[in-house]
Amino acid sequence: MKITTLKELEKTKVTMEGASNVWKQVPISKSHGSPTFSFRVFTVEQQGHTPYHTHPFEHLNYIISGSGVLVNKDGREYQIKEGDFALVLPDELHQYRNKSSDEPLVMICAVPSDYE
Amino acid sequence: MKITTLKELEKTKVTMEGASNVWKQVPISKSHGSPTFSFRVFTVEQQGHTPYHTHPFEHLNYIISGSGVLVNKDGREYQIKEGDFALVLPDELHQYRNKSSDEPLVMICAVPSDYE
Repeated sequence: MKITTLKELEKTKVTMEGASNVWKQVPISKSHGSPTFSFRVFTVEQQGHTPYHTHPFEHLNYIISGSGVLVNKDGREYQIKEGDFALVLPDELHQYRNKSSDEPLVMICAVPSDYE
Repeated sequence: MKITTLKELEKTKVTMEGASNVWKQVPISKSHGSPTFSFRVFTVEQQGHTPYHTHPFEHLNYIISGSGVLVNKDGREYQIKEGDFALVLPDELHQYRNKSSDEPLVMICAVPSDYE
């Protein structure tokens, strides 16, 4: 059993190509013994974005605070906001963008523990 | 890709033995195509609790709102509150209790999609 909170966790800048003003924290991962999947938290700062990319695993998201858009394979933007859940399937082209000038977009981005 | 929010989702009462005043919603599961794991949300009403039990799969939790305690195998209680994350390992005896008289405990309880 493990209990943690974001304030206790190291925050590292995401340096992946295509990412802009994104920070990562990892509350629960295989390093804590989680056998199947991991909870990461991304903070996408104002006007920031994740890469517009694909990967062979899914994302399960919960928006902790703020708002933004989730861009699909056709470039279409879907609003996401505090309290929303999102599923991005394996190999699905996607991007998270914070279009706000006011507040960061903070979200859980859960992935299989093979990847975190 | 799928985006949803709790207000859109059916809420069913948990009738499992040992559960008291607990409601379940399922934002993301294998029925939506999630290949590895699922997000369920439990609302534990004031003075309610989940069963004190074990199962062969893990829980990954995020506390959306409210507060309560997570009881471990020895009956020891650990405080959990809005913004906290918890990991309960497979076969670990556990229970979530809302000891408040004021507000529900609302939390993500993610499990492998074989179980939801």
